[in-house]
Parts: sequence; structure tokens; C-alpha cells
Amino acid sequence: MELTESQQREIGELTAAAYTTKRPTVPALEDILYTPFPVLDHGFIRVIDYMGDDAAVVQAARVSYGRGTKQSSQDKGLINYLMRHRHTSPFEMCEIKLHVKLPIFVARHWVRHRTASINEYSARYSILDREFYFPKFENMAAQSTQNHQGRGETLSMAEAQEVFEILKRDAAQCYDDYEYMLNENPDGTKRDENRLGLARELARMNLPVNVYTQWYWKTDLHNLFHFLSLRAESHAQQEIREYANVILDICRKWVPLSTEAFEEHALGGTHLSKKASAAVARMMRGEKITREDAGMMKGEWRELMTAFGLDEEGNPL
Amino acid sequence: MELTESQQREIGELTAAAYTTKRPTVPALEDILYTPFPVLDHGFIRVIDYMGDDAAVVQAARVSYGRGTKQSSQDKGLINYLMRHRHTSPFEMCEIKLHVKLPIFVARHWVRHRTASINEYSARYSILDREFYFPKFENMAAQSTQNHQGRGETLSMAEAQEVFEILKRDAAQCYDDYEYMLNENPDGTKRDENRLGLARELARMNLPVNVYTQWYWKTDLHNLFHFLSLRAESHAQQEIREYANVILDICRKWVPLSTEAFEEHALGGTHLSKKASAAVARMMRGEKITREDAGMMKGEWRELMTAFGLDEEGNPL
Amino acid sequence: MELTESQQREIGELTAAAYTTKRPTVPALEDILYTPFPVLDHGFIRVIDYMGDDAAVVQAARVSYGRGTKQSSQDKGLINYLMRHRHTSPFEMCEIKLHVKLPIFVARHWVRHRTASINEYSARYSILDREFYFPKFENMAAQSTQNHQGRGETLSMAEAQEVFEILKRDAAQCYDDYEYMLNENPDGTKRDENRLGLARELARMNLPVNVYTQWYWKTDLHNLFHFLSLRAESHAQQEIREYANVILDICRKWVPLSTEAFEEHALGGTHLSKKASAAVARMMRGEKITREDAGMMKGEWRELMTAFGLDEEGNPL
Amino acid sequence: MELTESQQREIGELTAAAYTTKRPTVPALEDILYTPFPVLDHGFIRVIDYMGDDAAVVQAARVSYGRGTKQSSQDKGLINYLMRHRHTSPFEMCEIKLHVKLPIFVARHWVRHRTASINEYSARYSILDREFYFPKFENMAAQSTQNHQGRGETLSMAEAQEVFEILKRDAAQCYDDYEYMLNENPDGTKRDENRLGLARELARMNLPVNVYTQWYWKTDLHNLFHFLSLRAESHAQQEIREYANVILDICRKWVPLSTEAFEEHALGGTHLSKKASAAVARMMRGEKITREDAGMMKGEWRELMTAFGLDEEGNPL
Repeated sequence: MELTESQQREIGELTAAAYTTKRPTVPALEDILYTPFPVLDHGFIRVIDYMGDDAAVVQAARVSYGRGTKQSSQDKGLINYLMRHRHTSPFEMCEIKLHVKLPIFVARHWVRHRTASINEYSARYSILDREFYFPKFENMAAQSTQNHQGRGETLSMAEAQEVFEILKRDAAQCYDDYEYMLNENPDGTKRDENRLGLARELARMNLPVNVYTQWYWKTDLHNLFHFLSLRAESHAQQEIREYANVILDICRKWVPLSTEAFEEHALGGTHLSKKASAAVARMMRGEKITREDAGMMKGEWRELMTAFGLDEEGNPL
Repeated sequence: MELTESQQREIGELTAAAYTTKRPTVPALEDILYTPFPVLDHGFIRVIDYMGDDAAVVQAARVSYGRGTKQSSQDKGLINYLMRHRHTSPFEMCEIKLHVKLPIFVARHWVRHRTASINEYSARYSILDREFYFPKFENMAAQSTQNHQGRGETLSMAEAQEVFEILKRDAAQCYDDYEYMLNENPDGTKRDENRLGLARELARMNLPVNVYTQWYWKTDLHNLFHFLSLRAESHAQQEIREYANVILDICRKWVPLSTEAFEEHALGGTHLSKKASAAVARMMRGEKITREDAGMMKGEWRELMTAFGLDEEGNPL
Repeated sequence: MELTESQQREIGELTAAAYTTKRPTVPALEDILYTPFPVLDHGFIRVIDYMGDDAAVVQAARVSYGRGTKQSSQDKGLINYLMRHRHTSPFEMCEIKLHVKLPIFVARHWVRHRTASINEYSARYSILDREFYFPKFENMAAQSTQNHQGRGETLSMAEAQEVFEILKRDAAQCYDDYEYMLNENPDGTKRDENRLGLARELARMNLPVNVYTQWYWKTDLHNLFHFLSLRAESHAQQEIREYANVILDICRKWVPLSTEAFEEHALGGTHLSKKASAAVARMMRGEKITREDAGMMKGEWRELMTAFGLDEEGNPL
Repeated sequence: MELTESQQREIGELTAAAYTTKRPTVPALEDILYTPFPVLDHGFIRVIDYMGDDAAVVQAARVSYGRGTKQSSQDKGLINYLMRHRHTSPFEMCEIKLHVKLPIFVARHWVRHRTASINEYSARYSILDREFYFPKFENMAAQSTQNHQGRGETLSMAEAQEVFEILKRDAAQCYDDYEYMLNENPDGTKRDENRLGLARELARMNLPVNVYTQWYWKTDLHNLFHFLSLRAESHAQQEIREYANVILDICRKWVPLSTEAFEEHALGGTHLSKKASAAVARMMRGEKITREDAGMMKGEWRELMTAFGLDEEGNPL
């Protein structure tokens, strides 16, 4: 991630600002406001704005005339209670706005979260930068043989190197051709006066989905937690997981009590099916049971045992 | 729930229809289409239309050109997998439309589920019927002393009788005054030519929230399951729970595999927090632990033990 | 609208706060933050928090690294362009949170706007105040004979007085009975030790829909404008229109350029159907045409003529 | 658009089905159910399922016990009234499910319509086909000089030919490399036993955004009309417009009255700002006014005059 001088100057102006407000303000988040956190090779996440704090969750839950907070232990208890019982609406009362730079294929996962607002950089209107995502060698892996949508064994150094060369070459060629088809100089004049050049909205169709785009993305805390519960999780593709992890860190600064409750009750928890609950209840009474006793499918049984650090026979790993 | 003759005739016309379609069709649901299922004293739920079936979930998950189904055991396995891993989007591919008659205070809970379409009977445009919800005596209970938003001990017969008389009297008086203020005959002419009568949108403000309203409500299967997971659950107010239970029965007819998966993995399951997971893992290994060992709050510990049929010391109940 | 001393103190603490922030800050809105604006007889609207300003709309539209603003005339032009061409997503980048006190029948209209977050005061958990909406005499009107869902002629003073007495009497009786059924003192102890008292979630069913409730309501600027376009409009029931008008005033302080564009292009504009467009095109060329020539329905023709200050023959009023 | 034999057989099985239903059924739509309508060079739209018809709009608006329809002229009038007054909720009571094959860059526009359900073919799980969109020569145009996000002059035959060759070459190379990196035979075995091959979720990042993807897409009629009002319109990129036009044709078969009302009141209408309304009112009275008199910006004035077939001086074109 490299910023141009003018981008750095613009960001600098923002971080130098100091206004007076009566609104709830979170110093730990103010400290990192506008600053880009690098993700992947060229991506970033910047917090552009936020509304509310942990106390705003409490205030909304109590429909209060004032701040609504009581002793901090009570506030913490209330936040935990709300999270545990899926009283999600008070968490919707906090809002965050991010500026994100990300590869198109990651953006395509991300956009599936519909309860959010997006303004994306328009490749119909503007020219995309020559920036592509290439995975680190240690992240280049073969198709998983277990999980149909995931990665398995890591490639050899040689094979990873070859993949890298292919990705780099194709990206370069596609982008060179994009520029050639556009036939535009940065100031909008033509490069070659003898050609018209192709409209931006058409030329961009030649760019692979590892090209970077960027957008403003704004959502509320409840929907952000939902996003994290799906995207910071082991089944999510690693690239979007890296973004999710940066956002999780941001949440820890912004709304520490809510994030702690989220990590305790949602992200870090275990969900048991009805059969799994019955099996666990028996095992908690000292019974030794098998998958067949439990009447569970193989995949689910394996996941259950793994969740409790047991092998498939129910013995500690 | 009493239907007028003209309502019965209208419903009769619908149930007598027989069209030919290429669309997925569920005979068990066709059998009950349009028929009102009574709920509470005057309410009902009618299935007006539906789209899709269990196979439509599978078809969408596979983005198939045809029906997308394979062996029925594979379809069932896939539906379970989707439910278990919260791959919710294929369940959005089924849709149902209900006609519901319900008290306003229930409607006010219901409408909080925002991902649904609603057309409600307009009290600005039409006159509401003289129908009010009065709880059965066995459902009249005191405020819970445990749970701040719930019911505890049942009232004595005498006290229930008194409450019933009060509710009935106030409803009658409010409705009489509603009619008086409207000053309208059923055909729209004035009852008393010497008074203007009050506009419907104003007169209705005198009606208590146990008056019945009705609406068309349409949602997809994923959001319907979400509704059920919150409203068929023990913390929901009993009145809306009765509606939820009727809907759950409808789902069993409509999409039996999906509903079974929902009951197994969502409705009937147990969610463990991070600390609860750790505590359970230790207990599954035969350790005897206390709430303090687990580092859990009282309420959460109690709920955890109850979920597994244990008392607060961890002994079988 | 009367506030208790403790409510006034709580609000006072909020308005006395002064934090330092780097976030976009709108002094004109800071001035009125937390202050209740009275609506109807006991209702109010308070701005609790906000995110963004006019420049945030511009910044998002440009997916900018900095503030994104250029000359103020350019920003204004861009905001107008976005509004005129229905590029709505940049307006979603501003957010506002309100605390609103409102009668239940108004809340029932309001909640139909689904793209918003709500935390409502819970009558399952808490006891509602003895506050009811009674219309002013000049607002008590008969059913419209033109418009099936609206008001026509104003009631006579005597009839209005009678309606007022009825509403007041029924509200008082219902609330007295609510309190009696609850059998609770403000501190939660029983009023009469010999009765259990009815659970709050049940007792509240006796309250008419003109009782006041309150909620926290949070939405983005695009959806707020959509709300206003439907609720500040002449077909909306007058009671919710009064709330909409107060919100419109708040918007003028908060985002003056966006609100001006909204009033110019949406709220104050005229929408012509295809036939109406053709008819207007002919009239602009000096042709004199009739409804029959235009092929328009009566209601639409009348609305069209009215919109341009003409009578049904097309002559200036 | 070519279908494989097995796809044709699967579609054939669906179109041969005939079930009996009591649900509203639209013969004109049944006739085309499941049949692919070609769009662009390899894309298609297939109607997979639908719920409701014109009468279902009427039925919901009337919250009826039966079909809710009256004389067909009254139903038509009601549908027009609903559309004209933006009473949108009854249109949400119809639902349609489509199977769409489309280039990724079109999918990226489409997905911005958030009130819809999507199941997309997963390139993490499956291998994308070697199918890319290449514009017809007559659609290859230069960047517009008027409109920053649009097309202007058409390229010369020679230049279009060159662009076509570039797009074709880059697509072929990227796809060849995709296959090479995957190192998979169609049956999942390795092509070259000496290489691991790259996971699908990674290899796909090399494919340009003109590669075709496919999805199931389901939405209600109100949101479909909103989609069409933005995507069948002249500012939309031509590629998505072609899809929108096919959908508009489908709507004409499915819900002819609603679609006619939509075309009359929304799609084919003209929206006038407050100033434009005032200017038009004066011109309708025979006044000759200039842009300066109207106080309008150039762009808006030009659009206004064009809408009524006038030049910028207000003279008929």
C-alpha cells in the first residue's frame, strides 16, 4: 500500500482537525481516525467516521433521556445480556464508516452483506490504478480435499513461484491492454490522436478480478458483528478474513465491551444442534457414547468432537 | 374466529380452483391453502400463496439448470449442511404469503421483523370490527419476579375473572364510543344527520391495542425461520408464540426437510459462549466444576445447567 | 410535553458536554443536540447523535482520501446532480439518531419505514406513562368525501368538544384500569397485598392507541428523505406530518445543501406520467387540450391541473 | 448462448411438468417458464418461478378474504392509483425468481440492488466455464464527452476489430492460465500428477470481469420495477440495459396491468423539480421564458427542454 503525496496530504489535513462536539466520543478511535491500516499487498482499511460507543448501546436499550449508563459493571452486564439473548437492536444504534481498498473478488464476497451502504469507485467514470493482488507464497495452496470450498496443502516454493509469475504476467498484459484501449493520458487527452479509444465502462472489462477497487462502506454495529461472525471465521476465504481481522481490532478500540461480549457469546462460542446437545448432556454425566448412539452425521460429529478437543472416539486429543 | 357468509363464500371459491402449472407444487400445502387456522380467540392464519419447496432450496444452492435434486438422502444432507453452516441464502429462495388476523399489540411485535412485506387493513380507510382479544383465564399471570419481561404465577380464578370483566367493559365502551364518534352506518350514511361524525383516522385512536387488525404478510423461508427462532421461543410473549407455532406447523407441511433441519440445528439447539464451551469441555472429561471455576455470570450459568438438565451444582435434576 | 426534573437534569448533563473530535461536526446541529422539540400535545423529537454533513455526501460520491470537497459551488452542484439523477447512495453516508415520543397510532405508520433501526420503550418491561394524544379542536374533522383516507370538513365547536370529552374519559378509564390491573406502586411493590396484579405485557393491552410511547430511531439521510417525501406530504395523516415537519427543520440545520436539493427536486417537484408529459408538451406549444384529448383518468387530470394552478378546463385559477 | 445436452434435457423435464394448483397462475408466463431468453453473446434469463399476478396486487391492497378483484376496469383503476400515489407495498406481494447468466461486471452493477435474494455459482467451489463477453462492433464506443460515465462516438470498424482481438486474446490467455493453475481434469483428477494445482478460490482471481457467471435471483415486483426504472433507463450501461429490457418483456406477460401502470407512471414519466414546475406552469400559460428566468442550472434546463421536445430556447425541435 503506497499513498501518493496528495493522498497523504489530504489524510494529514483530516487528522489535524479538532472540533468541539457534544456527541459521544471515543478517544481510542479518534487516535486512529483516517489512518490507513494495510491489508494484503495493496489494500487498506481507514475509519472515516463513527457514531456512538458502548454507552450508546446501553442508552438505546434503556430508551434513556440521558446517557443511560449506570455503574460500569451494570452496563457491562447489560451488554452481555443483550448479546447473549440476541437482543440485537441496541447494537444497531452504533454506526461506522470505512474507506476500504480491496481486490474485486473480495469485494464480491463483501457486497453480499446487504444491510450496509456502499459508494464504490466507479470504473465507468474513472480509471482504475495498476494495482493487483498477488498472494504471498505461504498462502498459495491447493484445493482442499476435505472441504469443497477451501484450501488444503501449500504449494511447493517452485510451484508458488510459477503461479506468481503467471498472475503477474497476465495482470500486466491485461492492464497494458486496458491502457491501450483507453488511449488516454492522465489529464484526459488522447495518447494517440489517430484512435478514438474505448469508453472506460467497456475497457475495464479486460481487468482480472484481482485488480484493486475501493469503496466507502458504512454499517451498524449489529450488522458489522454479523459480518465478522461470517468473515472472521475459518470457512471464509483467507483474503476477506484478513480484512475482517483488522475490523475486529478496530471494534476492540471503538466499543470494547460490546466486542468482548461478541467474542465471548458469538464469535468464540459453539453452537450445538438438538442431537449434539443431547449427546453432550450424556457425556457430561460421564456416559461414553459413539456417533451412532448420538444419531449424528459424520461431518457434524467430527466438528462437535473437534470443538471440545476430542478425537472421533471422544477421547481427548 | 367467526367468518361471515360472504367471507366463507369467497374462501370457498379459492379452494375450489384448480389450475395447471409447471411450478414446484406441494400437495400437503395445497390441501390447506386459503383455509383459516384459528389462533387466540378471534385471530387466524391463512396461507394465501407460496413459492418453492425443499427441492427449490437444493436447486438454488446448486444454481442448477433443472430441478437440481439428486438422491433424496443427498438433498436432505445438503439441506442439513446449509442450515448447520448458516448458508442461509438458498432458504431465501422459498417464499410464503399469509393472511393473518391478530391483536394490534401482537402486530407491534411482529412488524419489528423488517425483511417482510406487509399490507395491513387500513383504519384510516375502513372501519375496524368489534373484535378484541381477551386472554383465557389460565393465561392470565402476574409479572414474573425472575424475568423482567415475562409472566410468573397465574392469577386466582377470582382475580382472572375480575381482569376479564375490566378488559371486556373497557373494550365495549371504547368501541361504542368509536362507533358514536364515527357516526356512520355500515353503508356509509350517517347515523345521526345532525352530527358530522369524526374521520376514521381520528376515531380509531380510541381503540385499545387488544383490538384485532389483519394483514397480508409475505416473507422468505430464511426470514420466516428467523422469525420463528425468536417468536416460537420461550422468551417471546405467549400471544405471538401461538401464531409462531401455527406457522411452524405450516412449515412442516410445506418444506419438511428444511423445517426438520431448522428444528434440529437452530430452534432446538443450544448456543454455548466461549466460557460455557470451555466449561462443558472440562465436564465432558469428567471434571466437576463450579460457576466460579467457569468464570461465568449467575444468569448464564443457570441457563447453561438448565440446558443440560443439571441443577446449579451440576448434578442431574 | 413536560419533563421531570430528573429528565431535565439528564438532558442538561448531555448538553453541557464538550469533547474534541476529528469527525465532521455541524455547529448548527450541535446547538440543538439533545434538546426536545415539542410535537403534538405531549410528544417530542430530540436529536441524539449524527454522523456526517453535506461534505460527507460529496466525499463518498468521490470516494475521496480527504474531505473530498472542492469549491462550495461545485459541491452544491454535485449534490444537486446526485439528487436529480437519483444517485442515492452518497446520501446514505450520513446518519441521524432521534429520540421520539409519539402516540402508538403514529408509531404504527412510522414503523412501516423498514430501513431504520428502532429501540422502543417496552411495555412488557416497564409501565407506560399516563399521557394520551387529544387533537386540538381545529384538527378534529369529518371523513373526507373526496379522499377515502383523509379528513374533510372541520367539526363544529360543540361536536369537537364532545369528541374531546369522550376521548379523555375513555383514556382515563382505560389507564385507571391499567393501573388497577397492574397493582403496582412506582417502586415495584404491590398496591394491594391481596391481589397478585397482572403482568405488564398483559395489562397494557387495555391502553388505546393514542397513548404515548417513545423510541430511539436511527436512519440514514437517503431513507430519511424518503420518509419525509411520504410523511411531510399532504396525503399523510396530519399527526405524523407534524413530526415530519420538525425533522425537515432539523435537516435544514444539519445538511442545508442536501435538504435544499431534496426540497427542490423531490419534495417540491411534480411527477408527470407519460400521458401527462405528452399533454403538458402540447400545452407548452399553446395547444388547448381537454382531459379526453389527453386520454387521462379524471383523478389524474385534476391533480395535474391543480399542480400547475389551472382549473379542470385548463384555465388559470 | 449454447446449452449442453444435459442442460437441455434438464430444462426439458421442467417444461414437461404439469401439476395442479389452487394458486394464482398466469398462462402467458407458464408458457415461457424455464426457457432461456438469450442476452448478450452468452448470457440468458430464465424464469424459474413466480408468485402472484395482477389480481394479487389488488387482493393485498384490499386485504381481501377472496381474490379481491372486482370489475376488471376497477382493478385496473386501482392498480394505476396505487402506482401513481406510490403505494408500493401491494406490488411487493408478487415475487419472481430468475436464473441469469451474465458477465461479472454486469453482476457487479446488479448486486447493488440489495432488496433481492441471490445464489451465485461459486468459483470457490466450482470451475467457471470458458465464456467471455465481447461487445458487438456497433456497441464499441468511445468515452462520452458529455456524460462522464457513458459512451459517445462509435469506434471505426478497424479500431473495433482491434479491440475485439485484444479482448479475445487476453481472455484466452487468462483462461488458459486459469486451467493450468487449477491443474484439474473435468472429473477432478489432476492433469499433471507432478503439480498440486492451485485452489479454485485462488486461481479464479486471474479471470477478467467479462467472464460469465450465473445466479438465481429473486425479488418482488416493487423492487423489480425499481430495478427496471434504474437499469432500463438511458443512463444505465448498455449491457445491463439489455437484461433489463428482457425482464420488462417478461413483466408484460406476467403482470400486464401493473407493468402498463409502471410504464405509464414511472418509467415513461417526467419528473419536474420545483423550479421546473414553475417554469412549465408559466409556459403552459403562453409565457416565453429563458433558463435565466427559470433560475435553473444548464444541465437541468437542457434535460427539461429535451423532455418536452424543445430546443434550449424553448422552440419546438
